[in-house]
Amino acid sequence: MAERSFQLYDTTLRDGAQQEGMTLTVEDKLAVARELDGLGIGFIEGGWPGAVPRDTEFFRRARTELALEHAVLAAFGATRRPGGRAADDPQVRALLASGAPVVTLVAKSHTGHVRDALRTTLAENLAMIGDTVRHLVSAGRRVFVDAEHYFDGYQLDREYALTVVRAAAEAGAETVVLCDTNGGSLPDEVSSVVAETLALTGVQLGIHCHNDTGCAVANTLAAVDAGAVQAQGTAHGYGERCGNADLFTVIANLVLKRGREIVPLERLAALAATGRAVAELTQLPGAAAAPYIGGSAFTHKAGLHASALRVDPDLYQHTRPALVGNAMRTLVSDMGGRSSVELKARELGYDVEAGSDAVARAATRVKELENAGYSFESADASFELLLREELTGTPRPRPFEVESWSVGVLGTGGDEVRTEAGVALRVGGRSVTATGRGSGPVDALDAALHAALDPCFPALARLRLVDHRVRVLDGTAARVLVSYRDGGRRWNTVGVDTNTTAASWHALLDAIHYALLDTGPTPDHRVPATATVPDPRPGTTAAVSLGALDPATGPDRFRP
Amino acid sequence: MAERSFQLYDTTLRDGAQQEGMTLTVEDKLAVARELDGLGIGFIEGGWPGAVPRDTEFFRRARTELALEHAVLAAFGATRRPGGRAADDPQVRALLASGAPVVTLVAKSHTGHVRDALRTTLAENLAMIGDTVRHLVSAGRRVFVDAEHYFDGYQLDREYALTVVRAAAEAGAETVVLCDTNGGSLPDEVSSVVAETLALTGVQLGIHCHNDTGCAVANTLAAVDAGAVQAQGTAHGYGERCGNADLFTVIANLVLKRGREIVPLERLAALAATGRAVAELTQLPGAAAAPYIGGSAFTHKAGLHASALRVDPDLYQHTRPALVGNAMRTLVSDMGGRSSVELKARELGYDVEAGSDAVARAATRVKELENAGYSFESADASFELLLREELTGTPRPRPFEVESWSVGVLGTGGDEVRTEAGVALRVGGRSVTATGRGSGPVDALDAALHAALDPCFPALARLRLVDHRVRVLDGTAARVLVSYRDGGRRWNTVGVDTNTTAASWHALLDAIHYALLDTGPTPDHRVPATATVPDPRPGTTAAVSLGALDPATGPDRFRP
Repeated sequence: MAERSFQLYDTTLRDGAQQEGMTLTVEDKLAVARELDGLGIGFIEGGWPGAVPRDTEFFRRARTELALEHAVLAAFGATRRPGGRAADDPQVRALLASGAPVVTLVAKSHTGHVRDALRTTLAENLAMIGDTVRHLVSAGRRVFVDAEHYFDGYQLDREYALTVVRAAAEAGAETVVLCDTNGGSLPDEVSSVVAETLALTGVQLGIHCHNDTGCAVANTLAAVDAGAVQAQGTAHGYGERCGNADLFTVIANLVLKRGREIVPLERLAALAATGRAVAELTQLPGAAAAPYIGGSAFTHKAGLHASALRVDPDLYQHTRPALVGNAMRTLVSDMGGRSSVELKARELGYDVEAGSDAVARAATRVKELENAGYSFESADASFELLLREELTGTPRPRPFEVESWSVGVLGTGGDEVRTEAGVALRVGGRSVTATGRGSGPVDALDAALHAALDPCFPALARLRLVDHRVRVLDGTAARVLVSYRDGGRRWNTVGVDTNTTAASWHALLDAIHYALLDTGPTPDHRVPATATVPDPRPGTTAAVSLGALDPATGPDRFRP
Repeated sequence: MAERSFQLYDTTLRDGAQQEGMTLTVEDKLAVARELDGLGIGFIEGGWPGAVPRDTEFFRRARTELALEHAVLAAFGATRRPGGRAADDPQVRALLASGAPVVTLVAKSHTGHVRDALRTTLAENLAMIGDTVRHLVSAGRRVFVDAEHYFDGYQLDREYALTVVRAAAEAGAETVVLCDTNGGSLPDEVSSVVAETLALTGVQLGIHCHNDTGCAVANTLAAVDAGAVQAQGTAHGYGERCGNADLFTVIANLVLKRGREIVPLERLAALAATGRAVAELTQLPGAAAAPYIGGSAFTHKAGLHASALRVDPDLYQHTRPALVGNAMRTLVSDMGGRSSVELKARELGYDVEAGSDAVARAATRVKELENAGYSFESADASFELLLREELTGTPRPRPFEVESWSVGVLGTGGDEVRTEAGVALRVGGRSVTATGRGSGPVDALDAALHAALDPCFPALARLRLVDHRVRVLDGTAARVLVSYRDGGRRWNTVGVDTNTTAASWHALLDAIHYALLDTGPTPDHRVPATATVPDPRPGTTAAVSLGALDPATGPDRFRP
């Protein structure tokens, strides 16, 4: 049974949108609202109608397009201007015109801000709050008041801060939200200020925190423990500067650690999926290390842990990942040993035992290779190739052999740069050579491999090289990670070599081998005319000769 | 005056290295240790000698290569095996052999872990702790004990957890560190467990938190408030799963919010720069939203705050960014850009004013170039070249012109890979061409540039290419950072291009231009016979033709 009286308030679409790099369309905002509604959030702040045209439009479209199941929309805005009347204030009118059942008014509660930012008197500020709240309440709106800079204001002039809280409540505000606007507070201060304010005013309180001390979540919990009944926050902690309190973490902590069923457990299980969906819409991925829902939140690497994890996963997890819709993952590394190899293998769908010889051999190879500069934790596909070799006791299937490969790059003093690669392979007993161009050696080698192999292995035609990273290790070797995509599937491989380009080549070959696992060479492969050349003479190698090229066309075939 | 008794303990190199995606070489680890030492951290945990070969090597090299000013190195390891003797335990021997003055032993304090993970009795676990601590102390080591899973263990069997703390201290452990290993605790629990443990044992305590509830920093502060005198954490909060407590945030909070001068203020001002340097070494950037040191930590977006910021920045900042070496940015104005250009320029020794036209032009160019993918933060030399152009109002001195450049890489199916580069330059009106070999395109281009230019500019002969890093950006461009060394001096440059190799070439040229600043072409330059060729014919370009080479010798000159 969910706690009906607790107010979960999301401000992703308003305060979260202050995040550097976030630009949401109205369509995006509607979609984010649907996701948050599905999680069981009670209040979704849609924006500031009248001040931001896109937000005015959001509320207009929301009336017909947004069928929310649980949530109520809130429109954010300011109190009327100094010296005016709320009924005549265009900004207050826009709040009413938005049609949002809840209006959240920002109000100054810090005397310095009243004087220096608002440039009015302390008395007029109170009149602005009272007048605006009464006007909106009499028009049938539920009103929340965000008391801006409350914690700093409380330290500076406690009586005035308390007077603002009382004035808002007396005018009809349902909840007064104490805001740590600059985010500089720590949990003990938040706890005592909330408790004192509650004791001295008896007003229903909320909390709105920023993360400038890295304590936004802890501050929010401290306020709730001290009696606040509304928690504001944003998806993924989006927001200006260091962000707002991460509402996903706040929810999971309140439900799983405090036992407060502010969303029912069956909705909590949608937390990770909601997080991914929102990140997709904002195009700002949440942190992999995000509590509860991050891709790394239940990922184990240490050997110390990996062996114990086999015995009982609960020994090394603070909660069950399935409760928040996440899953445990294991990283293979030289710190993990046999247990992490076993766990990783099981995750990849292989039924193996840590005690087996194959796992021991795989663990030894991982350790040796990582010592030589390899890194398998971001290269699942390379690990799987290695693992299969040890499990089957045979080298990986080689649907083709490499005779040679080459890359040439030619730059002039100006902007034009040309990269050409060539590969000479043997597929099913025949020689296949091809060239490819690209935006660099890796890209060009990929193009040449596609040109040579796609006709023989049609499945490869869908593969796309999407990323690569080169890292020089201690000046003696290079490690290259490459990422391939095949539709929705993505895999990473790693290559290490004293030669940088050779490291890339190894990673590319791993990726192709991985794509061709369980695929032998097609017996009747066709080789297209444009890529066909006679077998290279023994002892010679394929070459890219750039010097004699016409810069406008370049070579389109190998010369043996 | 710094608090001498408070122990700041960094475990970036051990627990932080469990972070997904982090693979540090020994060289990287030494460099990270130097950065942390510069910040005034008291203890740096270097790794687990004996268990991880790279860590054994780290301690070996640290003895001769790491001259730490403030920090003491700590070696991490486990207590001896059940049923054995510490003196005979190979892992314990490795800890002594590391030569680290401090040994941090991990010990079980949770009865479930003793039984199910360690598979021994509760009594034997205590014997293992006592025996191992005594053995290390009698060998002259300071010993810290990490009480693993302490908070969970305390809930399950308080008496046993307390007995572990007492056993460690009685055997001679200086500090017993209470670890929230699974990271599931909240600040109020941490506070009460630390306070109770201190009251019941009187043992000197430390705290080690993970961020699985998003409260690692708050938990660390709660423990320190409750009497813990050692705070463990990692740079940027690196670590397994959701990471460890971010030691940078912990330090800033303790100094600026709690007034505890655990590092002196002049070192605190290096916090942001240290964070950037460490991120560069780990290749894992800290979050832009990171408290205090993040690129967005003091960034304000247009709107409500803009006008007030102009009146008094302190109204909208919880602390002064300069205290942690950061700066305020406002996204609407270029003033932030100008100030950072001014700051950087002053750091490099140029006396400039943010209000000057030159700084404005430099800020605009930085903004445009960063938008195109450049990153000057780690490329001081490229920035200085740009800055000097704007200060002098003239393009950078070009001691030579580029006519063409090329690279060829040739691989056989076996291990042999050859990389050759060629450059065709004009120096003082004459053509100079040369080739070079290397372990990859960047290395070979560097060799060719040396071959061509060293005879003309003898100062270049001392330059060594020490590192390069390639990053593909959004699949459309690549950014390459290169590092050069000239004796003790090191500088970094950056190149961006749609072509990966061209990006490297731009970075290499910047590095050479930087080295030749204030050096015109020597009027009477000599060109060695081996590198001399006739001027290329107009319209032709230098070439590396690999196909016709004898593999044993290769080309030693260009063919036009």
